[in-house]
Amino acid sequence: MLMSGAQYMESMKKYNPRIFLGGQQVKLLENPTTMTVIRANAAVYDLALEQQHKDVMTVYSDYTDAVVNRNLHIARSAADLEKRAEMALLTSQVLGTCNYRCVGADILNAIAGVTWEMDRELGTDYHQRFTKHLKYLQENDLACSGAVTDPKGDRLKRPGQQEDPDVYVHIKEKRADGIVVRGAKVSQSGAIGAHETMVIPTMGMKPGEEDFAVAFAVPNGAEGITYISQYTPFTAERELNDPKYLGNPQYGQRETCIMVFDDVFIPWEKVFLCGETKYCGKLIARFAKTHRMNCGGACKVGFADIIIGATQLMAEYSGVHKAPHIVDKITDMVRICETARACSVAAALKGREEPVGSGFYQPDDVFGNAAKLTVAEGFWDLMKWAGDIGGGMAVTMPSEKELDNPETGEYVRKFMKASAPAEARLRIGKVIQNWCAGLHGAGTWHGAGSPMAQKMALYHLANLDEKKALAKKIAGLEE
Amino acid sequence: MLMSGAQYMESMKKYNPRIFLGGQQVKLLENPTTMTVIRANAAVYDLALEQQHKDVMTVYSDYTDAVVNRNLHIARSAADLEKRAEMALLTSQVLGTCNYRCVGADILNAIAGVTWEMDRELGTDYHQRFTKHLKYLQENDLACSGAVTDPKGDRLKRPGQQEDPDVYVHIKEKRADGIVVRGAKVSQSGAIGAHETMVIPTMGMKPGEEDFAVAFAVPNGAEGITYISQYTPFTAERELNDPKYLGNPQYGQRETCIMVFDDVFIPWEKVFLCGETKYCGKLIARFAKTHRMNCGGACKVGFADIIIGATQLMAEYSGVHKAPHIVDKITDMVRICETARACSVAAALKGREEPVGSGFYQPDDVFGNAAKLTVAEGFWDLMKWAGDIGGGMAVTMPSEKELDNPETGEYVRKFMKASAPAEARLRIGKVIQNWCAGLHGAGTWHGAGSPMAQKMALYHLANLDEKKALAKKIAGLEE
Amino acid sequence: MLMSGAQYMESMKKYNPRIFLGGQQVKLLENPTTMTVIRANAAVYDLALEQQHKDVMTVYSDYTDAVVNRNLHIARSAADLEKRAEMALLTSQVLGTCNYRCVGADILNAIAGVTWEMDRELGTDYHQRFTKHLKYLQENDLACSGAVTDPKGDRLKRPGQQEDPDVYVHIKEKRADGIVVRGAKVSQSGAIGAHETMVIPTMGMKPGEEDFAVAFAVPNGAEGITYISQYTPFTAERELNDPKYLGNPQYGQRETCIMVFDDVFIPWEKVFLCGETKYCGKLIARFAKTHRMNCGGACKVGFADIIIGATQLMAEYSGVHKAPHIVDKITDMVRICETARACSVAAALKGREEPVGSGFYQPDDVFGNAAKLTVAEGFWDLMKWAGDIGGGMAVTMPSEKELDNPETGEYVRKFMKASAPAEARLRIGKVIQNWCAGLHGAGTWHGAGSPMAQKMALYHLANLDEKKALAKKIAGLEE
Amino acid sequence: MLMSGAQYMESMKKYNPRIFLGGQQVKLLENPTTMTVIRANAAVYDLALEQQHKDVMTVYSDYTDAVVNRNLHIARSAADLEKRAEMALLTSQVLGTCNYRCVGADILNAIAGVTWEMDRELGTDYHQRFTKHLKYLQENDLACSGAVTDPKGDRLKRPGQQEDPDVYVHIKEKRADGIVVRGAKVSQSGAIGAHETMVIPTMGMKPGEEDFAVAFAVPNGAEGITYISQYTPFTAERELNDPKYLGNPQYGQRETCIMVFDDVFIPWEKVFLCGETKYCGKLIARFAKTHRMNCGGACKVGFADIIIGATQLMAEYSGVHKAPHIVDKITDMVRICETARACSVAAALKGREEPVGSGFYQPDDVFGNAAKLTVAEGFWDLMKWAGDIGGGMAVTMPSEKELDNPETGEYVRKFMKASAPAEARLRIGKVIQNWCAGLHGAGTWHGAGSPMAQKMALYHLANLDEKKALAKKIAGLEE
Repeated sequence: MLMSGAQYMESMKKYNPRIFLGGQQVKLLENPTTMTVIRANAAVYDLALEQQHKDVMTVYSDYTDAVVNRNLHIARSAADLEKRAEMALLTSQVLGTCNYRCVGADILNAIAGVTWEMDRELGTDYHQRFTKHLKYLQENDLACSGAVTDPKGDRLKRPGQQEDPDVYVHIKEKRADGIVVRGAKVSQSGAIGAHETMVIPTMGMKPGEEDFAVAFAVPNGAEGITYISQYTPFTAERELNDPKYLGNPQYGQRETCIMVFDDVFIPWEKVFLCGETKYCGKLIARFAKTHRMNCGGACKVGFADIIIGATQLMAEYSGVHKAPHIVDKITDMVRICETARACSVAAALKGREEPVGSGFYQPDDVFGNAAKLTVAEGFWDLMKWAGDIGGGMAVTMPSEKELDNPETGEYVRKFMKASAPAEARLRIGKVIQNWCAGLHGAGTWHGAGSPMAQKMALYHLANLDEKKALAKKIAGLEE
Repeated sequence: MLMSGAQYMESMKKYNPRIFLGGQQVKLLENPTTMTVIRANAAVYDLALEQQHKDVMTVYSDYTDAVVNRNLHIARSAADLEKRAEMALLTSQVLGTCNYRCVGADILNAIAGVTWEMDRELGTDYHQRFTKHLKYLQENDLACSGAVTDPKGDRLKRPGQQEDPDVYVHIKEKRADGIVVRGAKVSQSGAIGAHETMVIPTMGMKPGEEDFAVAFAVPNGAEGITYISQYTPFTAERELNDPKYLGNPQYGQRETCIMVFDDVFIPWEKVFLCGETKYCGKLIARFAKTHRMNCGGACKVGFADIIIGATQLMAEYSGVHKAPHIVDKITDMVRICETARACSVAAALKGREEPVGSGFYQPDDVFGNAAKLTVAEGFWDLMKWAGDIGGGMAVTMPSEKELDNPETGEYVRKFMKASAPAEARLRIGKVIQNWCAGLHGAGTWHGAGSPMAQKMALYHLANLDEKKALAKKIAGLEE
Repeated sequence: MLMSGAQYMESMKKYNPRIFLGGQQVKLLENPTTMTVIRANAAVYDLALEQQHKDVMTVYSDYTDAVVNRNLHIARSAADLEKRAEMALLTSQVLGTCNYRCVGADILNAIAGVTWEMDRELGTDYHQRFTKHLKYLQENDLACSGAVTDPKGDRLKRPGQQEDPDVYVHIKEKRADGIVVRGAKVSQSGAIGAHETMVIPTMGMKPGEEDFAVAFAVPNGAEGITYISQYTPFTAERELNDPKYLGNPQYGQRETCIMVFDDVFIPWEKVFLCGETKYCGKLIARFAKTHRMNCGGACKVGFADIIIGATQLMAEYSGVHKAPHIVDKITDMVRICETARACSVAAALKGREEPVGSGFYQPDDVFGNAAKLTVAEGFWDLMKWAGDIGGGMAVTMPSEKELDNPETGEYVRKFMKASAPAEARLRIGKVIQNWCAGLHGAGTWHGAGSPMAQKMALYHLANLDEKKALAKKIAGLEE
Repeated sequence: MLMSGAQYMESMKKYNPRIFLGGQQVKLLENPTTMTVIRANAAVYDLALEQQHKDVMTVYSDYTDAVVNRNLHIARSAADLEKRAEMALLTSQVLGTCNYRCVGADILNAIAGVTWEMDRELGTDYHQRFTKHLKYLQENDLACSGAVTDPKGDRLKRPGQQEDPDVYVHIKEKRADGIVVRGAKVSQSGAIGAHETMVIPTMGMKPGEEDFAVAFAVPNGAEGITYISQYTPFTAERELNDPKYLGNPQYGQRETCIMVFDDVFIPWEKVFLCGETKYCGKLIARFAKTHRMNCGGACKVGFADIIIGATQLMAEYSGVHKAPHIVDKITDMVRICETARACSVAAALKGREEPVGSGFYQPDDVFGNAAKLTVAEGFWDLMKWAGDIGGGMAVTMPSEKELDNPETGEYVRKFMKASAPAEARLRIGKVIQNWCAGLHGAGTWHGAGSPMAQKMALYHLANLDEKKALAKKIAGLEE
């Protein structure tokens, strides 16, 4: 049974996560910033009920023999992967911020394959546990977020060598009924508004690092968990202003937190990897594969669509949209957007079964990395052109509150007017400010892993031997 | 019946095209430069007979109920388009120069659809004529090149307004048995080595320009045709040197000519458009669609594979391939190459039937344009990095003839040696010189239309209204 | 007599400008955001008293036969210009925001030359008026800001054709004792904190646009003036937080306002151009010349120094500063910074007397435009690399207030620690957030005119005829 | 006494260097390629006699109390450095190829300082020897080239560890009357056409590498020297064609050779460093300083002037020069050119005495490196835009010989005509081909050291501690 947005919001009332923001404890359903996460999730639930988006947002699951939200689906074909990327595109276009279930969805897909392999190779029952958990999520249509990045402490030391072992999530204790975990995840998106969170290691682990090789599911606000939220100028702006005056009124910024695990108990049925260091690398690699296609590629294309739209509108509102240099810049924005989209489409459609025999599908990794690298560099250009065409207004505009101020309203209406009224220009100006003068550049750069990671992946994925053979043949050099 | 390379070469003996090169008339099968075209074509014929490339190079044709060379195939599905792009990739990887039948193949596809439409809408019999011609090509496995670009004279005037009407190919006379055409095509690739050439207008035509609206097939060396070949430093180098000393020993540069039509008679059965100005725009647009995917995207990816291979080899030969900045540059080359490949794959796999009902397929135009723009900019970066890693050697290396010179051979062997012998370094250095210090940058830039054309296409293809609506929704602006 | 920062702050008490911010009227010396402007100005006053900066910040004036603040100096030599650029660099390095007297200084220099010319050519007494005003500023060591950019209304119409004439500042009435002006200036920096503001036309004017050809000085808060301040997320953040938690604690963002002139009276002795349309183009062109060198070039180099410093610190704090790709990125930042610095130095040292005979100096315009274009593009790269190395932290860090929160302080200290303690990393992270996720990209892009203006200038300044002659000579073509 | 070009050519008759090119021995004054070097040198001699260039090309020398060619001058002031850069600019503009005395000039300046230091610190008489040699050069107005780059063999091994010691130039024997040297220099420009060549180590040397620490002067064609010339497609083209048909008719490409030292005797008075490993680093660093300003910066600006001129001409010849995208590209070319020029001007004008007390001047190193990096990246963009606007013609044009061919001349005249006649378009097309489809990209990239070297220099020159202090102050962090 698919939930509506309203039902989801109702369902969140029974959770009471311990959240701190700006130095104070806040209530999930009361704080204006945490509420942007709730509203974004509700919107994604509602999208799944809209007839026109059914094909993208939902899919038949043979686990439950029912239609489920695609955020909880394990891809079984290249067509599935393409729909998954389309979902990332759609939610970005609608929300202008994170689909907070995206990381969770990609982790579920990665764990599906790795547990399947472990069971076959090691005789474990992880995949059975996982399947049960997945059914639970699907049957109750739960929002599932994901947590990946550890604080990492001293970057030159391995997990086991750190002064404070807590800078990597690890198993503190194994009990008959489950395990106790300690540590934290940083830059975590959306756990505060999800029913469940999937937690996996941040990287491959080596023999001797068994305690750090752990993957599990944990419900919102489980005992021992504290969420310390990010705090930015945008947090303050939202606290002081009616949402209608903001750059993304309903759904805000991508909100993250430090998710602290202070001796959290996880029952065995929610543990999906526990000490098998050999599988950590595969797990994170498969997660990266889908996530670079979705978050790295398709999601940012949706943002690009909004930015291009806002920039084109501002050009029209200022009456300059036919100037050749404006057309040239808009075209460059379209080029970036469509090139990334192409990489994401190719990654999906050239996807393959992995692991072989499992029936699970993963996108092509080369194209997924190309998508992310295109978007990472390209996003700064999108910001540049949006700022260029947005003009001084995107930086120096007054509050839209002035429009209602009897002492300044007429001035603002008079002086901010061009080919469109001041109201429309200020509104779109604020949208542009949000994108070109905000957190998005660095956020897009690092989301789904920083470009250095994609570069390393790409280098290793490149079949240089084949290319060398081609060059030798052209050169007339014998092998 | 598929021909072998040898059979193709034999078949060319019966043609005697009037070719000028470097100010003198030359014989097609004797001149070292024209022979690179012949050898390249022969290699493509042979590829089609190799078991491992059968799937890419050949395809079943229901016109002839037989397997034909893919260069003569009309795409009937997205899968067909993908194989077509793979053929472009493969021939580039093997030849390191033009598949001289590529333009012809893309014109055949464009004409198929436009003649189908004209027959339905105008009651003509062009499609029937075209089908007959296509069968003739397929049954005899003929090499078919294409000619598109007119000299254009004064760029600010339309065809009919030019001082000299000959700067656009046009119908000089209509007779009972056919038409007489005049004019020229420039930057024409491969007509000298093809059995047949397809000729189409360079752009859309307007009412009143009926004489310039003409498409037809013409055999090699038909009466009235003169080919004036390009002449570059590479032409001279080939004239003076054994091929083994050159940057692409067998297949050379992309050789083009000015193809002059000095009152050439074309019988009606080889005329496929004659005065229908309204269809010229569609014809060139459909040609551009496939050609940007193939020549703009896939073909240059094949070249990139060779360049990357040669650059990596040179890094290894100099012993510097593990230096972090070398790895970074190689990775950047791979990124460019794979991003273009992704655009080409997406263009093929998102291809659609066009015209609807015809059964013919065209690639997605947005992604095709993205492919070409990625390659056009990216190729200069490939050249830059190849030159960077190729080092001074790529510019200042002596002739490999010195290796056989008793007075200098030992010096060269001694001083050009690094982690590999001088012989190998000079050989790969010459390959790199060919790519990073030759005609390829500008050639790639303009091939399949200059980037300005793709930008214009992309701007018009972009659905800006949809993007504007997304931005308005985020802004909270009413429609 | 040079004022100290404290004396300046004292002096501002007698002004009571009508300022609106966030929809409400605020007091200049009480509002936390307007106070950043006051503190920045005070710091510039103090710099001029520091022995080590005397050479840069002060200069002998033969108008007053005394040492004056360089912000009030008319350049008399290329060495003067170089010191002026060094002042821009120094104030940016120290403030991390606008020297709010920079625009004023560059306007004073532009008006000096233009009034000198007008008096000689038209027999007016503008230069005498100007000289008197300048002495007044120098003798009292006043802060003088500048106002240039008009709202512009419909961009496709000239000033006189606008529906509402007020979208360009203009003369409403000429009286015996002075003029009455109406209109507004937008994106105005620092008028709220200056004793005086110089106002000039935004562009060249044509015959018939005499009412819009007006330049004058006006004291802070003159009757009829309203300042409507910009309002950004950073404004809100400052309102809600102790400055110590902010990205630039003392001096904040570059604060601007819409400066409304609602029938403001200007006595004749403060009017420096009044109807002489012919001189408007020269006036704005000379202003642009110095401003592109100072604001476009040197000022942003100072910001770049801070950004590079913060980024290097963060790399060291995370222990990754020796990784080759980090070194490469830092080097790229240095390259951008030093290239812009070189352009600014060359602009100053190749400066020339202009107008000839006046004794006033203007920088070289080609190099000034090159400076601005280098910085405009380069700043986005600086932001990109700062964000890259700043990492997720620059976007997702929690409030530093959490450090003092007994419930979260230990968590934050534990998990934000790397090679340096959490406190230092969060502090520098906030500085990086301020630069790479704030208003600076678009602000730098447009400051001193948007790059399109510089490009147009550069095209017209380029001596293409000379270059063509060189090419012809090489080609062996006769002239 | 300054020589004329004719006198220089006469003077070369007494030399008979052993030169190999394309596998055969050639005579310096007979081979068409070696003659381009001779003609270029002759042109530089003639420039020095032209009244309008006297100020740039000549300078008073207190060594000889006479006016000398600036190529033989040791800079004594920042103004001297600026003139030196202007000479680099001028010769590039006139020749469109290498001033083959440039490296020699920069080595003379580097050796002047280092020998001055050695004499003071070690009590040697190197500087006295050097001064005597310099006077000899000045008094006879000799052309002096320079040789720097060793073959380097295995890049991971130091000179002393190489299998074959000859891959670095070294002292084989010390005798009473001089030394015997062995080895080779590669990518050497112009030694074949110079009276004298200065040879210095390619890099810093360490204790134990005394044999490789050697700097000396050697006359053209000294016994034991063999020159093995580069051989490129352009060499072949020149061999086969009248110069008037070539891209740079008179002066050709930058011609280099491998200069082999097979036991060459150098008398003591021509030895300027012999075993003092400690001074090698300084020597090469000072050479790099001036050379990056001159060759890296100013010289390429002169080339850029020609390329921009040719590109603008071609746009005019095709009638498209007013299209906005053409104007935009030309402007971008100008921006690159002027930014590099600014860096070079700043490097000169901020030059400083080095070593202190010597009276010798060196340019600012930061700006010199910025110049080279700007040019290295920028040159590929110049090529890209030249190729873009040059169009297909720059790649596919026929030989200009066809114009004289009765069978093709009319065709070519007819079809290559646009807003200018075919003759002019082909001529400028060939110039563009030379620049955008030749050796210049990679050549410019590596000249004066590859960009990686400049990046390393820039990183070490950057005062990161100062920048860190600025960031800490803004952050409010204590030191």
